[in-house]
Amino acid sequence: MSAPIVIIGSGFGAYQLIKTIRRTDQNIAISVFTLDEGHDYNKPDLSHVFTNQQNSQDLIRMSGEAFATVNNIDLHPFSLVESIDCDNQEISVEGIAYPYSKLVLATGAHAFIPPMLGDATKKVLTLNSLREFEVAHPQIQDAKRVLIIGAGLIGTEIAMDLMSSGKQVLVVDPSMEVIASMLPDYVAYQLRHKMVELGVMFELKTTVTALENCETGILVTLSSGKQQYVDCVISAAGLKANIALAKKSGITVNKGIVVNSQLQTSVNNVYGLGDCVEINGTVMSYLQPIMLSANALAKTLLGQPTDLKLPAMLVKVKTPHMPIQLGGSNVNGATSWKVDIDSQGCSVKAYDDSKNLVGFTVAEGHMKHAFPLLRGLPATL
Amino acid sequence: MSAPIVIIGSGFGAYQLIKTIRRTDQNIAISVFTLDEGHDYNKPDLSHVFTNQQNSQDLIRMSGEAFATVNNIDLHPFSLVESIDCDNQEISVEGIAYPYSKLVLATGAHAFIPPMLGDATKKVLTLNSLREFEVAHPQIQDAKRVLIIGAGLIGTEIAMDLMSSGKQVLVVDPSMEVIASMLPDYVAYQLRHKMVELGVMFELKTTVTALENCETGILVTLSSGKQQYVDCVISAAGLKANIALAKKSGITVNKGIVVNSQLQTSVNNVYGLGDCVEINGTVMSYLQPIMLSANALAKTLLGQPTDLKLPAMLVKVKTPHMPIQLGGSNVNGATSWKVDIDSQGCSVKAYDDSKNLVGFTVAEGHMKHAFPLLRGLPATL
Repeated sequence: MSAPIVIIGSGFGAYQLIKTIRRTDQNIAISVFTLDEGHDYNKPDLSHVFTNQQNSQDLIRMSGEAFATVNNIDLHPFSLVESIDCDNQEISVEGIAYPYSKLVLATGAHAFIPPMLGDATKKVLTLNSLREFEVAHPQIQDAKRVLIIGAGLIGTEIAMDLMSSGKQVLVVDPSMEVIASMLPDYVAYQLRHKMVELGVMFELKTTVTALENCETGILVTLSSGKQQYVDCVISAAGLKANIALAKKSGITVNKGIVVNSQLQTSVNNVYGLGDCVEINGTVMSYLQPIMLSANALAKTLLGQPTDLKLPAMLVKVKTPHMPIQLGGSNVNGATSWKVDIDSQGCSVKAYDDSKNLVGFTVAEGHMKHAFPLLRGLPATL
Repeated sequence: MSAPIVIIGSGFGAYQLIKTIRRTDQNIAISVFTLDEGHDYNKPDLSHVFTNQQNSQDLIRMSGEAFATVNNIDLHPFSLVESIDCDNQEISVEGIAYPYSKLVLATGAHAFIPPMLGDATKKVLTLNSLREFEVAHPQIQDAKRVLIIGAGLIGTEIAMDLMSSGKQVLVVDPSMEVIASMLPDYVAYQLRHKMVELGVMFELKTTVTALENCETGILVTLSSGKQQYVDCVISAAGLKANIALAKKSGITVNKGIVVNSQLQTSVNNVYGLGDCVEINGTVMSYLQPIMLSANALAKTLLGQPTDLKLPAMLVKVKTPHMPIQLGGSNVNGATSWKVDIDSQGCSVKAYDDSKNLVGFTVAEGHMKHAFPLLRGLPATL
């Protein structure tokens, strides 16, 4: 019997890959090594878990054990892979070598916490995994006043979720606007406007310099000099791909683990999948590209080398008080915009220097325009 | 000799009326009663006086005395008109009756100061007349930190002017955006963005609740609970038409002195002119309508009854770091908008429910589109 396909990680990409392989091949050996229990859960749900009054158990679709049984895999929970021996095609876990025929690095990404001073910095919560959510959930539940560091997609979604569940929310970001790297400024502005009306407080163009424990909670100090008391702090300041294992094993990394269009790393029989990988200079995020990656990689691993093709994809901003969908590039690479606004909502079309449509954003009643617009966009890969 | 034309007020409208009458009739008797010296000055210059390093004397085109001589008028400076006897066609000043053949109320408007607590409220400065500017100028000159109450057209213009002259400026307004009643929100947002980048601070959706004297200046307390120290406070919270004299004389008033399309009040031979009047429910402001009013009224007063016609007019927002021009209604009465944005600037077209163009706003490099757009707008009167 040849060595199994070994997957490091049990997140969305890894489990999507397994499900896809099993649709074609019920028998090929698959081993999974993961740092946690290996539960199958829906990570995007983390953005509206407070409004939905869910706890971490509610998010689990299937326990790790059940998933392993159903999918006929060899699951190694709570297992830290210490090194990869690329020449001998084996990984090492607690000193034991496990051989692989093909290795898939699906090591994910971790939440970045900006450097801050003060004795309360260790209390900063992150929400990038079920585990982190388990730790954070009771603290956030008990909090009346929450500081969210970061007004990107996740920070903004969480802010709206916590506000909707009755908390006093302060969002701090060095940018001038919410979701500034993705949303055309008109839409970003409307979204923030809506959130301010609903009671969310923003301190933009500023950073958190210190978090200090005090009797009435945590004292937040901003670079602007302003201070405010909160009960808990969530960092949503972006993700960093987990590249350490790849790097020390001699696999080429940059911001992520660098892969080609077949998701192969710089090393033979070693592949990358999910938000730990970088393809064409871009670190992968969002579910849809990862799902397509898993589909392409399943074919490749089963002997049919397949290039990943990424059509223009729809991103949904999960801000239910002002739902937004977007596609393509609305900020970078766009140099002119046309905006249509009426009582239903708004549409923004973004164009490059040659007046080609490169992105769009539609909000509220204009979301019906999303798919026709999406068809007008070029493929990303 | 019949009684003179009597004008109460010596602002832009009054003096424009006199100049226009004199172009046709050099001899008809005109008397002017005014509360101040009656200097002829350019009020809009008050919006960039600090950047231009001007003092109040620099703004005077002609002293009251010189203006009276040149225009052959009987000027009564520092004169409070106590009452109007409409039946006998005379006004009373310090108990002396002055007859009129025609009376023009050009009593102007006064700066509104929102109610606030604290012992420093009496220090609040306003900039709605040369007189007020004379008082305010040295205090503003000496100030490092200035609070501006009001983010309307004037507050915003003054904020940019003071920021440009090196002061630390905080603007407080109950609205969500700058110049919210006139600018399409996209443009307002861009303007505020630009101002924030240049260092102006905004506290929007909030009001000033108290101003207290303290050792290091004036302590400002906002309804949000925030506090800040400043050196001086300017109120730019809007104007109220001066209607008291008209009201107690039995002339119909509403928000302003109500006039018909010939600028006649409810009383025979009594007319209204400038920002004290209300026509079709709107209180007049801006120079161009007042200039056209003065031209029409001059004809009427000289025996040729003339209806005021107001074409759509261009309003210039005097914010030199982001120059803006607008016409028509961009906010009230508009229900959909089309926005074009490129590296040159932006254009916004506003439409009513029937998709008729009712307003436009152009900024920066798009200002070249202003006149073609203006021609597409309906007349206001």
